[in-house]
Amino acid sequence: MTNSLRVVMAQLNLRVGDIRGNLERIIEAASHARDELGARVIVFPELSLCGYPPEDLLLRSSMQARIERALQTLCERVQGIYLVVGYPWYEGEQCYNQAAVIADGNLLASYAKQHLPNYRVFDEKRYFSEGSGSCVLELDGLPVALSICEDIWHPQPMAQARAAGARLMLNLNASPFHMDKQGEREATLTERCAEGEMPVLYVNQVGAQDELIFDGGSVAMAADGQIALRAPAFAEGLYPVDVRYDDEQVSLRQGTLAPMPELEASVYQALVCGVRDYVNKNGFKGVVLGLSGGIDSALTLAVAADALGAERVEAVMMPYHYTSSMSLEDAEAQAKAMHVTYRVLPIAPMVEAFMQTLAPVFEGLPRDTTEENLQARCRGTLLMALSNKTGALVLTTGNKSEMAVGYATLYGDMAGGYDVLKDVPKTLVFRLAEYRNTLGQVIPQRVIDRPPSAELAPDQKDEDSLPAYPVLDEILRLYIEHDLSASAIIAAGFDEDVVKRVVRLVDLNEYKRRQAAVGARITQRGFGRDRRYPITSGWAMDD
Amino acid sequence: MTNSLRVVMAQLNLRVGDIRGNLERIIEAASHARDELGARVIVFPELSLCGYPPEDLLLRSSMQARIERALQTLCERVQGIYLVVGYPWYEGEQCYNQAAVIADGNLLASYAKQHLPNYRVFDEKRYFSEGSGSCVLELDGLPVALSICEDIWHPQPMAQARAAGARLMLNLNASPFHMDKQGEREATLTERCAEGEMPVLYVNQVGAQDELIFDGGSVAMAADGQIALRAPAFAEGLYPVDVRYDDEQVSLRQGTLAPMPELEASVYQALVCGVRDYVNKNGFKGVVLGLSGGIDSALTLAVAADALGAERVEAVMMPYHYTSSMSLEDAEAQAKAMHVTYRVLPIAPMVEAFMQTLAPVFEGLPRDTTEENLQARCRGTLLMALSNKTGALVLTTGNKSEMAVGYATLYGDMAGGYDVLKDVPKTLVFRLAEYRNTLGQVIPQRVIDRPPSAELAPDQKDEDSLPAYPVLDEILRLYIEHDLSASAIIAAGFDEDVVKRVVRLVDLNEYKRRQAAVGARITQRGFGRDRRYPITSGWAMDD
Repeated sequence: MTNSLRVVMAQLNLRVGDIRGNLERIIEAASHARDELGARVIVFPELSLCGYPPEDLLLRSSMQARIERALQTLCERVQGIYLVVGYPWYEGEQCYNQAAVIADGNLLASYAKQHLPNYRVFDEKRYFSEGSGSCVLELDGLPVALSICEDIWHPQPMAQARAAGARLMLNLNASPFHMDKQGEREATLTERCAEGEMPVLYVNQVGAQDELIFDGGSVAMAADGQIALRAPAFAEGLYPVDVRYDDEQVSLRQGTLAPMPELEASVYQALVCGVRDYVNKNGFKGVVLGLSGGIDSALTLAVAADALGAERVEAVMMPYHYTSSMSLEDAEAQAKAMHVTYRVLPIAPMVEAFMQTLAPVFEGLPRDTTEENLQARCRGTLLMALSNKTGALVLTTGNKSEMAVGYATLYGDMAGGYDVLKDVPKTLVFRLAEYRNTLGQVIPQRVIDRPPSAELAPDQKDEDSLPAYPVLDEILRLYIEHDLSASAIIAAGFDEDVVKRVVRLVDLNEYKRRQAAVGARITQRGFGRDRRYPITSGWAMDD
Repeated sequence: MTNSLRVVMAQLNLRVGDIRGNLERIIEAASHARDELGARVIVFPELSLCGYPPEDLLLRSSMQARIERALQTLCERVQGIYLVVGYPWYEGEQCYNQAAVIADGNLLASYAKQHLPNYRVFDEKRYFSEGSGSCVLELDGLPVALSICEDIWHPQPMAQARAAGARLMLNLNASPFHMDKQGEREATLTERCAEGEMPVLYVNQVGAQDELIFDGGSVAMAADGQIALRAPAFAEGLYPVDVRYDDEQVSLRQGTLAPMPELEASVYQALVCGVRDYVNKNGFKGVVLGLSGGIDSALTLAVAADALGAERVEAVMMPYHYTSSMSLEDAEAQAKAMHVTYRVLPIAPMVEAFMQTLAPVFEGLPRDTTEENLQARCRGTLLMALSNKTGALVLTTGNKSEMAVGYATLYGDMAGGYDVLKDVPKTLVFRLAEYRNTLGQVIPQRVIDRPPSAELAPDQKDEDSLPAYPVLDEILRLYIEHDLSASAIIAAGFDEDVVKRVVRLVDLNEYKRRQAAVGARITQRGFGRDRRYPITSGWAMDD
């Protein structure tokens, strides 16, 4: 006789720290899964009760009591369904990244994560001790194992679960997005399913938390690697999977496969998700940004309007003597195309006031970037005043290439709370702008086609002081994402002087990045918690 | 027959990342110890070749080759002395925090750190694998063990060394300062010496690295807990210890004990060390800061002048309508007392230009903190222009109490590269100002005595909007340093409304702190790498 177990994968967007709110969402989802979807089991993401990553909130003395109370409430309020939920669990001096199965008033079994990632963006060994041993229990007669995120990237927990008699693996995740991540996940899952000769239900959370973007992409994979269900990326939902089992085998009923996202589309959605969640989860009414007529602010505006709706976005053009009429025209055209509030505030009166005050001090000294920075800082101060007065968040518009080489002004164009393009190299900015226009032309083609310029000095072009962006971005990728040395990059065929200059700029500008706004991480090595360099450093590129 | 082994404790200020420079300093110190001090052994701090903490420089592909070359050079160039040095050691996918004994061309033995701190400011499990097993070798017939920093805070490495026959422990450290740390260290060493029934030579580095301050305080302690030598805090030096041994016992010849520092003196020296090393190691010619007539900028100026010399310090008074004549007088008096360059740049023209530009936008909206922030941002922009033009670093002057509750303006008074008082609560600011004046009156008494005011609005006082500082600082200490919940602080006897308001402000202002300048950590929980909170957070104080 073949049995069937309906398992719902709860791909939810939970909120870090908000245990009470997450608890209510979990209870609501469980009730819906049981009553409307006919599910016997519902699986939530990693650390679903406290959200991921909770960081040092885990060290607060009141966390333990809050979690215990939440688990108690789950036991009391959830009936008629097996609920699989993640939470931090404290035992004496230790804390575990744990998952439990709760049903009809009882916590039936629990599992502690065995593989704790402590690299790149992860700091789990700061908080957690490693679990040991599998957790296998029968749900309606089917022996099911639990595992948590990183566990599935190593063979050992699956081997252990199999040895303990498991025939289905439920894997709770908080797996952050980067480009092409879904392919990596599914390749790994294929290996694990084959090793364990059992299906895996991979449940991931969705939504943004500061710089981390979680894309969902939950997957139900059969033992042979066949995908029975792929949840869409960047969307919340409850996804039922029917697991069929008898004494011989366990199979999954074929369901719907969301398409694997194209690269540009997935990055664009990640940026939209990042802005939306940062703004909404932090309670901002809207955003304001400086629109310069250049491509970075153009793309940032498009992302913001797509994330929040035009009515919550305000764009400000702040021209000065070096602002071209083309920039003024294009900024206005774009603001109109996107239907956002648009304002023009010339900065000349402020810049002149600073220049006059500083004239006696600067007398006899040559003009340099000081005067350019003054323009940027007058703009930053205006935007911050609008933000202070209206409660709108200032979005900054610097891209990854600029953040890397310090081609940005601290307290100027870097002033703001969230940097939409922080991890997007300039060459990808162009591709994303083209992509966005395929959904509806909102960025004037001239903005995409004209040579990039900061317009802080007469006839200035980015490529006067930086290598061409395709060259720059490739050097940056090798240096930042792959940790190659300058000499290795030169050996790969790049000009020695260019490489040395770029590497020196990256090293020197750590101090700027340290004070930069957070922004969505979309590469395998973003600036932020992913790359922790000393500011004070004697590292020499040619030692 | 009693033998004697002279061991030099090399309490040096090394430079993170500068392997070549550190190598030369190590060779020079070893030659000096051998030739001038008659030493047989010299012990350097933890990770002395690359400096501590190297952070993600450890992930650079060229680190391994640089370290191997440096060790090779040490083997070639150091003769006639046992040299004990620390470095990262790569084996396949693993990296170890290691120490080795090098003599006459050979690496005689090596030890890998067994206890890797991964809490508070430490991230060693991000980089290192744990060593296992002791390293005991005979130096001139005396069996000596090695251990590294955190190892000495746990009983196991000492027990292991003793079981392996060691009779002397050499402990290499990079142990950061916080208030009263030296007492904690020596109490722990007393336990270890007793357990191991052997002396410990505890060698610590000195100097500042970004937010971390290393105070030295190297100690030679006999088996009975008697201290034979205590090196002075915050000073580089080579400190010889004579170890006497025969078949029966190992003893230390009594040397000089630097006095245990008083609290205010040690914190003041820590701040001086922080500024000096940040400025010098990053190659700034000097510093510039805004001098407001208040106590924070007064103390910051004193620290800066003591750290760098008056000729490298420039103070700028930037008055506005709300600046009192008392503030103008006191700022000038202090600048004169400290012999620093002093300049007055009124900000009214810039503030008025912003207000006029914004008038149509702000029409009908009430005056609020926006106008106060504009003043602060005009000051920040002026200071940054001076910095850009002259190459001086801008010091910010915010204290820990202000950073905690967000009583500071982003891109305004928070604009700058290094915040001297970042981890100094306001009540301690007062004590440090009094302390500094005992060395010579440089801060006008009126600056210490008057009620603190930001002078951003008419007749403004800090205590109009904040609780009295002694109350505020105690609440902050319990919340930040001890992780107590709001209800636990209320239960400890503080007013409920005050506690809730303070806790809410601390939680809300994580976004400001994330963009703040680095500054010296002097408490057990500083803002920065020591306290990693999410910006986006649903943590509710009363859940």
